[in-house]
Amino acid sequence: MAFETGFLEGHLDDEQVTTTADTLESHATDWGTESGTEPDAVVYPAETAEVADVLAAASERGVPVTPYAAGTSLEGNPVPIQGGISMNLTRMDKILAVRPDDLQIDVQPGVMGSEIDPAAGEHGLFLPPLPASADISTIGGMIANAASGMQTVKYGEVADWVLELEVVLADGSIITAGSRAVKSSSGYNLRDLFVGSEGTLGVVTRATLELAGRPAQQRGGRVLFSSLSEATAAVADVVQSGVDVARIELVDALSARMGNAYSGTDLPDLPMVFLEFHADHGIDEVVASCRAVMDAHSPERFELADEAEMDDLWQLRRDLAFAVRAYDPDRQPLHPGDVTVPISEYGPIIEYAKQLGTEHDLLVPCFGHAGDGNVHYTALVDPTDPDQIERGQALYADIVQRAIDVGGTATGEHGIGLGKREYLEAEHGTETVAAMRAVKNALDPSGTLNPGKIFPAGDDWQRADPEEFR
Amino acid sequence: MAFETGFLEGHLDDEQVTTTADTLESHATDWGTESGTEPDAVVYPAETAEVADVLAAASERGVPVTPYAAGTSLEGNPVPIQGGISMNLTRMDKILAVRPDDLQIDVQPGVMGSEIDPAAGEHGLFLPPLPASADISTIGGMIANAASGMQTVKYGEVADWVLELEVVLADGSIITAGSRAVKSSSGYNLRDLFVGSEGTLGVVTRATLELAGRPAQQRGGRVLFSSLSEATAAVADVVQSGVDVARIELVDALSARMGNAYSGTDLPDLPMVFLEFHADHGIDEVVASCRAVMDAHSPERFELADEAEMDDLWQLRRDLAFAVRAYDPDRQPLHPGDVTVPISEYGPIIEYAKQLGTEHDLLVPCFGHAGDGNVHYTALVDPTDPDQIERGQALYADIVQRAIDVGGTATGEHGIGLGKREYLEAEHGTETVAAMRAVKNALDPSGTLNPGKIFPAGDDWQRADPEEFR
Repeated sequence: MAFETGFLEGHLDDEQVTTTADTLESHATDWGTESGTEPDAVVYPAETAEVADVLAAASERGVPVTPYAAGTSLEGNPVPIQGGISMNLTRMDKILAVRPDDLQIDVQPGVMGSEIDPAAGEHGLFLPPLPASADISTIGGMIANAASGMQTVKYGEVADWVLELEVVLADGSIITAGSRAVKSSSGYNLRDLFVGSEGTLGVVTRATLELAGRPAQQRGGRVLFSSLSEATAAVADVVQSGVDVARIELVDALSARMGNAYSGTDLPDLPMVFLEFHADHGIDEVVASCRAVMDAHSPERFELADEAEMDDLWQLRRDLAFAVRAYDPDRQPLHPGDVTVPISEYGPIIEYAKQLGTEHDLLVPCFGHAGDGNVHYTALVDPTDPDQIERGQALYADIVQRAIDVGGTATGEHGIGLGKREYLEAEHGTETVAAMRAVKNALDPSGTLNPGKIFPAGDDWQRADPEEFR
Repeated sequence: MAFETGFLEGHLDDEQVTTTADTLESHATDWGTESGTEPDAVVYPAETAEVADVLAAASERGVPVTPYAAGTSLEGNPVPIQGGISMNLTRMDKILAVRPDDLQIDVQPGVMGSEIDPAAGEHGLFLPPLPASADISTIGGMIANAASGMQTVKYGEVADWVLELEVVLADGSIITAGSRAVKSSSGYNLRDLFVGSEGTLGVVTRATLELAGRPAQQRGGRVLFSSLSEATAAVADVVQSGVDVARIELVDALSARMGNAYSGTDLPDLPMVFLEFHADHGIDEVVASCRAVMDAHSPERFELADEAEMDDLWQLRRDLAFAVRAYDPDRQPLHPGDVTVPISEYGPIIEYAKQLGTEHDLLVPCFGHAGDGNVHYTALVDPTDPDQIERGQALYADIVQRAIDVGGTATGEHGIGLGKREYLEAEHGTETVAAMRAVKNALDPSGTLNPGKIFPAGDDWQRADPEEFR
C-alpha cells in the first residue's frame, strides 16, 4: 500500500523529507522485528510546529504516520505496517532546560537517554529509572514504550519521573498533559495515558522529567548460588523483607555460562544475583541486612565492592545481551522479550521456562530485573530449522501465557507493538480492550497514528475511512 | 430536574434503594460543598454485578449516576447537580485478600483508609501514601480524587500504589485496568486514567494496592523559625538536598496561633516545620543531615522525639484543620482547598497568599505538605458579610491562578469537582481540555456518570440526549 506523500513539500524543507531506498529500508525494522513495511517517506521535523503541520496534513489525507527515533525497540513499536510516513524525531534532540532548584529537566524526544545524566550531573542530580539501553535509546522512545530499568526496584519506572508532556495529537492540535507540580489531581491524567501508548495516541514533543540527588554512597555486589531455586528464593526474600536494594538482577546458570564465554570471566556457571546499593548514610548496614537475608539461602560466594570497583563485579551482567547473541553462531536468539509477574511467582515462572527448554530441547537463557518480578528470556534456535523455530515460538508463547495466568503482564517494559498483539485480550479481557479502543478512536479518529500496533491484528477499527474525517 | 427511578426495583432489593428525605439530603453535599442537588434515589450496591446492573439500566434511560462514599471530599466531587441516582458504595467495604508474599492487598472501594494498615500490619506491612483523613475517607474516594498525604514526599501518592482496578463503565461493562505485576507496558494505561477521574469515567469496584514493609526506625521533629521566609527556604533546601524525610509539613505563624489556641500548646506563634523520618538503618545520620540543612536557616528551636514521643510534638499539626474552624466563632473558613507548585515557587506563593490576606484584611492561614510544594489555605470570613465573602473569594481565586502561572496545579489532592471547574482550562489549555472531553465521551457516551464535574460549567457535552444511546 503506497501513499502519496508529495503534500509534505508544503510543510517541510526538502532536506527534511527523504525517500531514498536505504533510509526507507532502515525505518522498516527495529531491533526485534523484521515484519514491517517500508514507509513511503521519512520526515525529520525539527520543532513542534512541524510535527503538528505534518500530522494535520496527513490526517486530512488518510496517510498513516508512525513515530520513530532510535529504532532500538524490540516489539516493532515504531515499524510501519502500512507504509505512509515515518516521523523520525531524532532531530528534536535538545536538552531545553535544567532547573536544579526544582529537580527538573526539560528535553525534546530525540535526546538519548545517556545524555541526561551528564547534563543533570552538573548539578549533582540524575535520572534514576533510565534503562540499561540508555545509550542506544531516546527519551521519547522510553516514554512511548513505558520503559523501566535496573534501578526501577528502588526508584520506580520512567513514567514515575515524567511530570509534564507536550503532545501533538493526530489532528495537529498541541496539548500539555501534567504539570510541573510533583502532585496534581486536576482533570484526567492524560500524561500517564500517553506514556506507554507507543505513538498511537500522540507524538511527544517535549517532556519535563523529575531528577533526584545522586546518592552519597554506592556499593555493588555479586552473589552466586548453588541452585536456581535458592537464587530466586533469595531475591523474593530480599523484596519481601524490604531491603533497600537499588538493583537486584538475576542471571541463570545458562546465561552465566554464556556470559563467562563472552566476557572472559572465570566464574562458575552458577545462578547469580547482581546487587547495587545506594544510600546517603548507613550503606554498610543496608548491605549487611541484604547479606543476612541472602545467607539463609547458602550462597556459594558473596562478593562486594565499593563504587570504584563495582563495575568489574558487574561485567558479566552488563555484557549479557551481547553474550546471548554470540554464544553459538549456529543458534540465534528468537525474538527476545520480557514478562513480569508478582514476586511470589518469580521462582516458579523461571523454573517453568527452564522446564520448557528441556522439553523442547532448546537453550533458554533467563535473566532480568528480578526485584520487579521481571524475566527477560529467549530461545536459541537454528534459523534454518523450521522445527526448532516452531518449538521456540511455542515455548515463548507458553511463558507469556503463564505470566498472564499468574496475574502478571505479557510485557513488562517493551510494549506490545506488533510482537505481543495477540496477548492483549488474553491479558486484559475483551471489554478492557474495547475501552482501550474507544480511547484510541476518541483521540485519533482518523486512525492516522501508528496504525496496526497494540490492538489485535486485523481489527478493522485501525484505519477508518479517512473520508469520514475530512 | 427529577428522574424516574422506579426501574431500580428490578435490579436491587428494596432495602438497597432509599428515597427518604434525610438520606437524599445527606447525599447532596460533601464537606466543602453546599451547591449540589438532592438525588432522586440513593442506591447501596453490595457487589460488582449490582453496580453494573444499575449503571447499564441508568445509561439506557438517561438517568445520571453519581458515585458516593464517605462524602468527605472538599470540591463537590460526589455531589449530584442534576439529581438522578447517588450510588453509595459504603456497603462494598470488604478487605478481600492480603497477599504478604506479594506485598499486595485487594480491597473494595468502601473500605475506610484507616482499616488498611491494621490488616496489612499483621504482616508487618503498611500503605504509605494514605492521607491524614484516612479515618474519614474511603479508598475508593482516594482513588477517585487522586489523593495523597503527608508521606507522599517520601513514598509517592495513592496512585503510585494502585496496581490493578476493577472498574464498571457507564454501560455496565466490567473491565480490569492494570495488573498484579509491579511493572507493565501492556496496552494503554487505563488504570491511571481512572485514578483521579472523580467517578466520571467509571466506578471502581475493586482495587489491588501495593504495600511496603514498616520502617524499623522512626523519629519525629518540630522546628520553629523566626520568619516565614526562613521556614520555606529551609523546606526547599531539604528537598533540593535530597534529605530523606518521610514527612515535612509547613505551618505558618497564623496557623500556629490558631493551633496553640485549639490544642492548648504553649509554643510561640512562629512558623513551624514538622518532620518525620523513616529508615531501617542510620536514622540518626538522616536526622543529622536534615538538621544541618535547617541550621543554615537559624531555627529558633529544633525538637526531636523517638517513635513513642513524637505524637506529642505533632499535636498542633494534627489538630490544625479543626483549629482553623474553631479559631473565631464569627469568622468561618471559606471553601478550603489546596494548590501545589514547583518547590522553588513554594516560598513565593505562600508570601503571596499572606500579602493578599493583608491587602484584603482577612486572616489567611497556610499550611500543607511542604515537601511536595503543597499549600492548603483558606480565608476566614464573616458569613453574614457579603463584602468579606467577595474579598475572600477573590483572594482564593488569585492564589489558584498564581499556582497555575508558575507551572503548578489548581488542585494538588482534592480534585476539580465543582469547586475548581473554572480553572481547568486556565491550567491545561483549551485543546488539552478538549482531549479530556473526547476521553469522557468515548468511555461514557451517554453522559451518565457524575455529570457536571471537572469540565467547565455549562458545557453541553455533559448530557447528550440519551435517546441517541438507546
